[in-house]
Amino acid sequence: MQSEQVWRTELTPLSFLTRSVGVYRERVAIVDGGRSYSYAELGSRISRLASALRSWGIRPGDRVAYLAPNAAPMIEGHFGVPMAGAIIVAINVRLSPDEVAYILGHSGARLLVAGAEYAPLIAAARERLGHELPTVWLGSAADADERPDAARPADLTYEAFLETGSPEPLRWSLDPDEGESATISINYTSGTTGRPKGVMFHHRGAYLNALGQIVTAGLDSDSVYLWTLPMFHCNGWGFDWAVVAAGGTSISLRAFDAGRAWQLIRRHGVTHLCGAPTVLTALANHPAAHEAPLERPLHIFTGGAPPSPTIIGQMEVLGIGVTHLYGLTETYGPYAVCAWQSQWNDLPSEQRARIKARQGVSYIIADPMRVVDEAMNDVPADGQTMGEVVMRGNDVMKGYFNDPEATERAFRGGWFHSGDLGVMHPDGYIELRDRAKDIIISGGENISSIEVEQVLLRHPAVLECAVVAVPDERWGETPKAFVTLRPGRSAEEAELISFCREHLAHFKAPRCVEFTELPKTSTGKVQKNVLREREWAGREKRIH
Amino acid sequence: MQSEQVWRTELTPLSFLTRSVGVYRERVAIVDGGRSYSYAELGSRISRLASALRSWGIRPGDRVAYLAPNAAPMIEGHFGVPMAGAIIVAINVRLSPDEVAYILGHSGARLLVAGAEYAPLIAAARERLGHELPTVWLGSAADADERPDAARPADLTYEAFLETGSPEPLRWSLDPDEGESATISINYTSGTTGRPKGVMFHHRGAYLNALGQIVTAGLDSDSVYLWTLPMFHCNGWGFDWAVVAAGGTSISLRAFDAGRAWQLIRRHGVTHLCGAPTVLTALANHPAAHEAPLERPLHIFTGGAPPSPTIIGQMEVLGIGVTHLYGLTETYGPYAVCAWQSQWNDLPSEQRARIKARQGVSYIIADPMRVVDEAMNDVPADGQTMGEVVMRGNDVMKGYFNDPEATERAFRGGWFHSGDLGVMHPDGYIELRDRAKDIIISGGENISSIEVEQVLLRHPAVLECAVVAVPDERWGETPKAFVTLRPGRSAEEAELISFCREHLAHFKAPRCVEFTELPKTSTGKVQKNVLREREWAGREKRIH
Repeated sequence: MQSEQVWRTELTPLSFLTRSVGVYRERVAIVDGGRSYSYAELGSRISRLASALRSWGIRPGDRVAYLAPNAAPMIEGHFGVPMAGAIIVAINVRLSPDEVAYILGHSGARLLVAGAEYAPLIAAARERLGHELPTVWLGSAADADERPDAARPADLTYEAFLETGSPEPLRWSLDPDEGESATISINYTSGTTGRPKGVMFHHRGAYLNALGQIVTAGLDSDSVYLWTLPMFHCNGWGFDWAVVAAGGTSISLRAFDAGRAWQLIRRHGVTHLCGAPTVLTALANHPAAHEAPLERPLHIFTGGAPPSPTIIGQMEVLGIGVTHLYGLTETYGPYAVCAWQSQWNDLPSEQRARIKARQGVSYIIADPMRVVDEAMNDVPADGQTMGEVVMRGNDVMKGYFNDPEATERAFRGGWFHSGDLGVMHPDGYIELRDRAKDIIISGGENISSIEVEQVLLRHPAVLECAVVAVPDERWGETPKAFVTLRPGRSAEEAELISFCREHLAHFKAPRCVEFTELPKTSTGKVQKNVLREREWAGREKRIH
Repeated sequence: MQSEQVWRTELTPLSFLTRSVGVYRERVAIVDGGRSYSYAELGSRISRLASALRSWGIRPGDRVAYLAPNAAPMIEGHFGVPMAGAIIVAINVRLSPDEVAYILGHSGARLLVAGAEYAPLIAAARERLGHELPTVWLGSAADADERPDAARPADLTYEAFLETGSPEPLRWSLDPDEGESATISINYTSGTTGRPKGVMFHHRGAYLNALGQIVTAGLDSDSVYLWTLPMFHCNGWGFDWAVVAAGGTSISLRAFDAGRAWQLIRRHGVTHLCGAPTVLTALANHPAAHEAPLERPLHIFTGGAPPSPTIIGQMEVLGIGVTHLYGLTETYGPYAVCAWQSQWNDLPSEQRARIKARQGVSYIIADPMRVVDEAMNDVPADGQTMGEVVMRGNDVMKGYFNDPEATERAFRGGWFHSGDLGVMHPDGYIELRDRAKDIIISGGENISSIEVEQVLLRHPAVLECAVVAVPDERWGETPKAFVTLRPGRSAEEAELISFCREHLAHFKAPRCVEFTELPKTSTGKVQKNVLREREWAGREKRIH
C-alpha cells in the first residue's frame, strides 16, 4: 500500500493549520482583546495544547468539552483537541445548569475547558453532574491566568496547562480504522424530543465545509473576520476552521455587543462577519453604524432566519453586502446559500429582497437538496407545492452521539430529514414556508417546544399546555405558551415565565402565556397547528 | 451501511456539473466562436455525449482519446466521458504522428474524438497504429458537422454522434470498488525515458484540485475565463473542471493567437487566463495590448517557468496581476503557488519580482512540499542548500498507466520525486534552481532530452550525441544538441534538425547543433552537466 499512501491523504482541517502556520507564520492569526497571536504563535500554542492534553491522559476518541467565550482558546481547541486525537464538544454558554450538566454527562466529557465569566453556571452544572469533572479555567480578558472562586483543587488554569505541553509540532494521525470519517466534534442541539442531541461531525466533512465557506465567503489571507457568531455554534458554522485555512485574521469578541463590534470593525478593517438576523438588526440600529464610512468592504453572512427587506435595505445603505445561508446543526451549519446572480443586480430593491429571502441552493461542496413528499418523491418545482427539505452527503452529520434510534429516524429513506417545509422554485432555489418539527428558532438558537412544555407541566397549577412559535420583530420567533390550569388552582403569567427561566436557558422561556382551553382532535390530540395558524394569520409563511 | 450513504458521497467533478447546471442554468457556460451555450444547454449536451458513448459501446474504465482544439467539445468531454464511466485521454495536438500513434496504442483508446484541423496528423497516426480506431470528427469553427477527407467510413461527426444520445440527465455512478479513487483521466507526458508516460488522475484529486483552483484564482460565477492554455495540458491545469464548478464562463480560443486573445479579453470582459510565460510575453508585446484600458480586472496565472521581472513589470503597467504557479503533470498541474502576502506590496519592484519568481508553497488542498537530500532528509531551510522537491497526497497522480516500474521509481521512499532541484527559503517558500531529470521545458511543454538523442542516433552520420537545455529569451529553454559524427561521415546542422522534425513534434527538435567531442567521465559516461554548465555560465539558476 506504499503507493496508495503517496497519492492519498486523509482530509482533515488539521492540514489547513499546518499549511497556514508554515505559509503565514508572521501574519496575525488572532486578535484577542489586547493580545494578538501570529500564525507561528498560534501553531505553537496549539501544539502545546495537544501535547498537554495527551500528557494529561486524553486518549483518542475522548471528548473534551468547552464552555468558553469567543476568544483565542476556542480556536486553539478546535485544532488542539483533534490534534490530540480527541473530539471537541463546544457547549452553548446560554444554557441552564441542568442542560449543561446533561450535555457534560451524555457526551462523557473527560475534561472541561471553561471561561471564568461562566463560573457560576459551571459550578452549578458540576454540582448536578454526579461525578468530578476536571476543569481548565480560562481567565477573563484582563487576566489570562485567573482562577475563579468556583475552581476546585484539581483544576488548572489554561496558560499553566499550556506550559505543560511542548511547542514543537506534534506528530498526529487520524484513527487508522476510521481515517477521515473519524469524529472531530459533537455539537448538542435541541431537537423535537426533550433533551438536546449530540450531532457528530467528521474530519472529512469539516474539511470540505471549511473549503465551502472559503469559496462562498471569498475568504483569503487578507480577510479579517469578526467573531459576532458564537464559536460554539456548529463550530462557528465552520469558520473556526475556515478562517485559519484561508490564513485570515480572527478578531475575538468575547460576547456580542453592537457598539464594541463597530469599534472592532473600524479598528481592524473587518471584511467578514456572521450572525442571525437579530445580530444584523442590532448592528444596523446602533448609533455607531453611521459614524464614518467603512474603509474596507464588509460582507455579512446570515442564517437561522431569512433577512428581512428592511435589514437588507439598511445594510445596503451602509455599503454592506448580505448573503443568506441556510442549514442546521445536523448539516455543519450552512448547507445552502442564496447564491446571488448578477442578472438580478438591477431589479427593484423589493424584488431583490424577495429573492434574497429564499434559502437557495446547495453549497459547492454539498449534494443537491431535495423537497419531497411523504413518499420521498420530489414535489413539482412550481414554487407552490410544499414538501420537506432533505439532504445527504459529505455535509451531513454522521449521526447523533449514542442515539442510534434518533439517527435512524433522522436518516429514514436514506436522506437526512431537516423537518423544514418548503417549496422548490422553478429556478431550482428552495424557499422555506413552515416547520414540521416542534422547533422554534429564536435569534438563531433552536428551542424545542416540547422541552418547554415539559417544564411547564412540572408546575403544580398547570393541567396541560402547548408551546408554539409566534412571530417577533426582534428575534424572528419567540415561544408562546397556551395553558389550561388545574381546576381550583391559579397562576399568573409572570410566575409561569419565571418558573421556566429557573429550569431552562432564559431564551427558551415563553415571552407570553395565554390561559385557555386547548383545541383538540376528536381523539384528544392537541392541535398545535390551530394555535399556530391563529398566531401567524395573514402571513405567507409560518416561520420567520 | 444505509447511514453511511447518508453522510458520505464520493468526491468527483461530476457533482460540480450537476450543481452548476441546476443553479446557473440560464447563464453562459461557454462562448465558442459564434456559438454560446448556457449551463442548461451544456448539461444536455454532456448528457447526450455520455449516453451516446454508452450506446456506442464504451464501458466503465475504457479510454476515450481527444485530439481537439480549445473549444466546447473538450469541456464536454471532461464531463461526458467520466459520466459514461470512462477515462479521458486528451492528447497534445503538437505531437508527431509517431507520438500520437504511440499514445493511442499505449492507452488502448477505443474511440477518438478529433478536430478536423488536425486531420492530416490523425490520418498519419491512424496509419501507424496497426488497428482501426473509430473516430468522431469535430468540425471546424465554421462548420460544426464537417467530415474531413481523412475520415473513414465507420467514422462519425460529433453533432450527429450527440444526436444519438439522450439529453435527459444520465444516472451515473463511480466504480463501486474504486469509488472516488477511480481514474478520471490519463495525461501523457514526456519523462526521462524515451516514450511519454500516462499520468493517471483520480476523481478525488480532480475534485480537490478544482476547488484548489477556485480558491487560488478566486473564481466565481461572474468569472470569465479565456482559454489561452491548452485544454489538453493536464486537463487545462484543472480549469476544465474548475470553471464549470464555479459557474463561470469559458471563452474558447481554438489555438493561441495574441491578437485574437486581446479581442476576446475586451469583448467578453475576461477576468482570468493561464499560460506559460511565453504566452504572457506574446500578450504583452502585441500592439493590441495598449489599445484601451481593461474594463474588468484581469488576473493571469503562469507556470512552466518563473515569470521574469520584465514580464511582471509589463503586466503591472497594463493593470494585470500575475500569479506564479508550479507543478508537474504528475501533480495535476499546479501543486504550488507563490502565495502573495500583502506586506510585500510596498517593496521595490525588483524585490517583488524576485519574490514572485519563487515557486512558493503548496496549494490549500495539497500536502506540504519537502526539499530533501538523497537520504530523504529535509535540507536546511537556508535558501542555499539544494535538494529535490518531493510531494505526496491527494494532488499527486495515482501512478503511470500500465507502468508499475516507472511508478515505483517515481514514488520511491513514499514520496513523488519531482526531479526538480531547489532550495527551501527560511520563510518556507521553495525556489527551483536546477533539474535532476533530463527534461527540457520549452514554452511550458516537456521535452525529454533522451527522446531527442534517440532520434539523432538513428541518423547514419551520428556517432554519439547529448542534448541539453539552453536558455532562450522567448521559450525559456530550448534543446541544443552536441554531436560527434562517425569517422568519414558528414552532416550539416540544418539536416540534423530537419531529421528530428520528421520524427518528433517540431517543438522538440534542437534549435542548434554543435559538432564536438563529448566530455566524459573516466568510465566513459557523457558528462551532460559539463555541457549545461557551459551554456548556463554566469546564471544563478540552471533552469529558466
